[in-house]
Amino acid sequence: VERKLQACLSNAGGENFTNKESFRQAVVNTLERRLFYIPSFKIYGGVAGLYDYGPPGCAVKSNVLSFWRQHFVLEENMLEVDCPCVTPEVVLKASGHVDKFTDLMVKDEKTGTCYRADHLLKDFCSEKLQKDLSITPDKAAELKLVLANLDDLSAEQLGAKIKEYGITAPDSRNPLSDPYPFNLMFQTSIGPSGLSPGYMRPETAQGIFVNFKDLYYYNGNKLPFAAAQIGQAFRNEISPRQGLLRVREFTLAEIEHFVDPVEKSHPKYSEVANLEFLMLPREEQMSGQSAKRMLLGEAVSKGIVNNETLGYFIGRVYLFLTRLAIDKDRLRFRQHLANEMAHYAADCWDAEIECSYGWIESVGIADRSAYDLRAHAEKSGVGLVAHEKFSEPKEVEKLVIAPVKKELGLAFKGNQKMVVEALEKMSEKEALDMRATLESKGSMEFYVCTLGKNVDIKRNMVTIYKEKKKEHQRVFTPSVIEPSFGIGRIIYCLFEHSFYTRPSKAGDEQLNVFRFPPLVAPIKCTVFPLVQNQEYEEVAKIISKSLTAVGISHKIDMTGTSIGKRYARTDELGVPFAVTVDSTSSVTIRERDSKDQVRVGVEEAASIVKEVTEGQRTWAHVWATLPHHSSATVDD
Amino acid sequence: VERKLQACLSNAGGENFTNKESFRQAVVNTLERRLFYIPSFKIYGGVAGLYDYGPPGCAVKSNVLSFWRQHFVLEENMLEVDCPCVTPEVVLKASGHVDKFTDLMVKDEKTGTCYRADHLLKDFCSEKLQKDLSITPDKAAELKLVLANLDDLSAEQLGAKIKEYGITAPDSRNPLSDPYPFNLMFQTSIGPSGLSPGYMRPETAQGIFVNFKDLYYYNGNKLPFAAAQIGQAFRNEISPRQGLLRVREFTLAEIEHFVDPVEKSHPKYSEVANLEFLMLPREEQMSGQSAKRMLLGEAVSKGIVNNETLGYFIGRVYLFLTRLAIDKDRLRFRQHLANEMAHYAADCWDAEIECSYGWIESVGIADRSAYDLRAHAEKSGVGLVAHEKFSEPKEVEKLVIAPVKKELGLAFKGNQKMVVEALEKMSEKEALDMRATLESKGSMEFYVCTLGKNVDIKRNMVTIYKEKKKEHQRVFTPSVIEPSFGIGRIIYCLFEHSFYTRPSKAGDEQLNVFRFPPLVAPIKCTVFPLVQNQEYEEVAKIISKSLTAVGISHKIDMTGTSIGKRYARTDELGVPFAVTVDSTSSVTIRERDSKDQVRVGVEEAASIVKEVTEGQRTWAHVWATLPHHSSATVDD
Repeated sequence: VERKLQACLSNAGGENFTNKESFRQAVVNTLERRLFYIPSFKIYGGVAGLYDYGPPGCAVKSNVLSFWRQHFVLEENMLEVDCPCVTPEVVLKASGHVDKFTDLMVKDEKTGTCYRADHLLKDFCSEKLQKDLSITPDKAAELKLVLANLDDLSAEQLGAKIKEYGITAPDSRNPLSDPYPFNLMFQTSIGPSGLSPGYMRPETAQGIFVNFKDLYYYNGNKLPFAAAQIGQAFRNEISPRQGLLRVREFTLAEIEHFVDPVEKSHPKYSEVANLEFLMLPREEQMSGQSAKRMLLGEAVSKGIVNNETLGYFIGRVYLFLTRLAIDKDRLRFRQHLANEMAHYAADCWDAEIECSYGWIESVGIADRSAYDLRAHAEKSGVGLVAHEKFSEPKEVEKLVIAPVKKELGLAFKGNQKMVVEALEKMSEKEALDMRATLESKGSMEFYVCTLGKNVDIKRNMVTIYKEKKKEHQRVFTPSVIEPSFGIGRIIYCLFEHSFYTRPSKAGDEQLNVFRFPPLVAPIKCTVFPLVQNQEYEEVAKIISKSLTAVGISHKIDMTGTSIGKRYARTDELGVPFAVTVDSTSSVTIRERDSKDQVRVGVEEAASIVKEVTEGQRTWAHVWATLPHHSSATVDD
Repeated sequence: VERKLQACLSNAGGENFTNKESFRQAVVNTLERRLFYIPSFKIYGGVAGLYDYGPPGCAVKSNVLSFWRQHFVLEENMLEVDCPCVTPEVVLKASGHVDKFTDLMVKDEKTGTCYRADHLLKDFCSEKLQKDLSITPDKAAELKLVLANLDDLSAEQLGAKIKEYGITAPDSRNPLSDPYPFNLMFQTSIGPSGLSPGYMRPETAQGIFVNFKDLYYYNGNKLPFAAAQIGQAFRNEISPRQGLLRVREFTLAEIEHFVDPVEKSHPKYSEVANLEFLMLPREEQMSGQSAKRMLLGEAVSKGIVNNETLGYFIGRVYLFLTRLAIDKDRLRFRQHLANEMAHYAADCWDAEIECSYGWIESVGIADRSAYDLRAHAEKSGVGLVAHEKFSEPKEVEKLVIAPVKKELGLAFKGNQKMVVEALEKMSEKEALDMRATLESKGSMEFYVCTLGKNVDIKRNMVTIYKEKKKEHQRVFTPSVIEPSFGIGRIIYCLFEHSFYTRPSKAGDEQLNVFRFPPLVAPIKCTVFPLVQNQEYEEVAKIISKSLTAVGISHKIDMTGTSIGKRYARTDELGVPFAVTVDSTSSVTIRERDSKDQVRVGVEEAASIVKEVTEGQRTWAHVWATLPHHSSATVDD
């Protein structure tokens, strides 16, 4: 990783940086100084884990989201919905968040300061490994093992390690409490009574799941279909670190693609099957290998990727990220290990982007099977199922378990209901075994888990038989394949991948550049009168009006600052094109990265900028067909 | 109002509706059935005041927001920012929300159910006036007065009226508690300690105010400039009513235009000065008149609208709403009465849209003077000011108040600091009066409010004099003019203004239509093969691909349903155009409201739809230049 990052940094004009920290510092300084983002509520000292997007950051975000809508929602005719952030407890109880969406926390026993238990253990082990030259090979191996299994440790195990290693509070060196779970949801109360607990949603997905029935109907009761949602999500992190990567409020863009669990092919799969990119399957991780280039189609056909639909979305995510100009050599798809994946998930891949913080999970693409719909159906009592109508009725054999309520009532009184439910829940095998036992022995012991004990079931208490039935349709709970995008993480990685420095003309300083593609660039074009003079300013205004008319976002800079300085300012915002007015009849257009300039008539400037911005024409084509311009006064 | 609404309803195909409730019911039924919106968490019984936008509603919302960005942010080069919803207490303490963002609540003394006190009193008075024929004219006048002053009543006054009229809990008839303030913000806690209270923001504006210093710098330290933000806001309403109009979470789009308080002209004011529309100034309301058509320029020049910049935004809001197809005859700009306006506001106008619920405040356009920036500057200690550099230094006379700390210390000991501060805070007049008194009498009584008492100030304790100084710049707190848009309210009114019904061809039922302009329509076009046949379906797919290529959102309907039914379905979604494939060489394009159809070649269909959708061409022009089509089989 270290070597790879070094290589990428030097590609990225990173020869100016001795290490990833100084590279990151240069990026972050530029981002903060040019208001790509701002620590929220800065004048009040800020709040950890909360950031504002300032004007250029907000424009980049809006561009990324527009492209997401176009690339996913419009292209696939997805059903986009928009649900509230405030969510009642019952929904997040069903989804498991109320009980399980926790991190383990320890408290400084004297000051009450809170820390994430795993962070402290991780920091201890890493530091020991890096700085303590006296540790034995055995000890080193042990620490490495702890690091590898960090995510699997229980509260007890974490606590034991913290005690064993004598880890204390980093700020005060005071002793620490035992680790205990802290729920990461922001809690609130809905309505004035104080009796309806609610939470700020930790993901947007649940809003889609609870609407499945309506959306399925809206889609003409047909599968597959996808619903999508862009919106804020909230996680009350214990101690946010890593700047824009781990924050307390962030924008998610999520897709829930509902599909028949026995038919996960995808009609447009062939469009992505030939893509080749870095993949890191489970097996390779287990054997310590790194990511390697694979053909997506091969990964699917070999069963490394669970199914075609999952593969299709992996491919579409790859196209999405690389179109934004995420460096394909620092993008990999890593399969979850068995212990990382939820028990119900069929398969899960993360799109990870490498930046100065390491490989960052930016998009998760999971086959969550039928878990979420089943959980909400059970909790709400509303059926969340799909139907497959048979062209002609099928004869099926069905097991019937018919408890004889009268006998059961006599035998079990108040417990009758629990016994009936337990009988009805038996699997086919259990039921047939029971029938055989009852027939041969007349009675049997039967465990009722809701009672926590065995009861004695007699032959007259239940009838079990098989029945032939004509069925006109199959009723099933759809599987859901969920690509979930952390928009802020993608944008931060995009910032790092787009940043480079180059020397000023005089060679006395390093200038910052973001090489955003026009799709991403916060402003597509700047317009500069070369010198402050009324005629040039008039022309600049005319060009500005034409750019507005063709819908190209731009900025005029009428200040008397030197043209070189003005170019440097816009390079630092990643503006791809600059129109410089140096006469009243023609102007120059400059491309950011090559610094090449062409000369065009005033009246054609806006349409040429529009064409190269929207990709109808490449800059290479513009450069090949229009007169070049080079002038000491205009050049930077 | 009643008569006016009736008139509008009949314009709106409302002849089918006997009153506004049945009209509303028809609109809302259509909106819910077609998933424009969905009560949130419906499968769990829903939560009052929370709604989802389903696919067509979400598309309408996204169109309205895109147009807002284009019409305001791009057109005026506003600085768009994106701040978190989670907000620490200190920010909302400074803004006044923690102390004052409350509604008065009463509780059912037995069940604990909560009600808004003013709602109960309003309902009581309205019902009495409408239904009790026995009340005296005096009583009627009294009740009307109560209704008129409802917003001004204190907790005590409301409580007294509730007692006097014997109002009880509507659900149980139980007695009610005295009214007490309930804060409408959703409260939460930031971080794991439980010691940092936070709130979900009740408006987006504060995020802009706290960033003023950075944004001013970003704008080259120049005024005026505007910042803008689109985002979620939250209000924990006591008892939400009126469907989509009073909700607990909603999207706001807010502009904060910062301007020199002594120079509120606007360079583009002349572009809106000639607009004429319904205005309801303060004077006219006081004298009981209704809104009348006025020339905006006249309202500004007569001083009815406080200043040009405020007038400019009123005009731009008018253009925005009418471009969305809000009916200009049911749109008025109503000036706040003196008692409605915050004490610091210079002027305030609401864009009110008439719908079945009455006139609904949808956009507020307020000149908030320097209040917000001053409040945050004071609380945070960070200067939030602008500078005007003088071309040459100006000589100014300044009052200097110099307390003599030594003498004050001797006289007041521990109270010295409070006395010093009080002396320094004197106005110019107070200071000069003090100087005169001290000179003539040698001492005077002086009230120190932080001590709550008078102290005796002697001549040797303070020096007061005037000093001439050269100043190079003027430092001042900018005024802010704030247009604030309730996006959900605008959209709901748009739904009502766009809805009408017309008889089906057979005349046996009424069909619903939304006459959305293409700008607003959730889907711009549908594509139908006339009958289910592979050749037609191929053509439909080709047209679909061309529509995707030119960026027109559309839907194919391949079902075998009759073409009339398929038209009716898309009319109900407000889809403006339908392409019907009835041959392999040419197809028809149908316009929703006229039901007129033209015949075009397969290859030109997409570009014609694009032109009429994006406004490069009108339907009238298409109709005038292309062959008409009328066929019994295709017509509905």
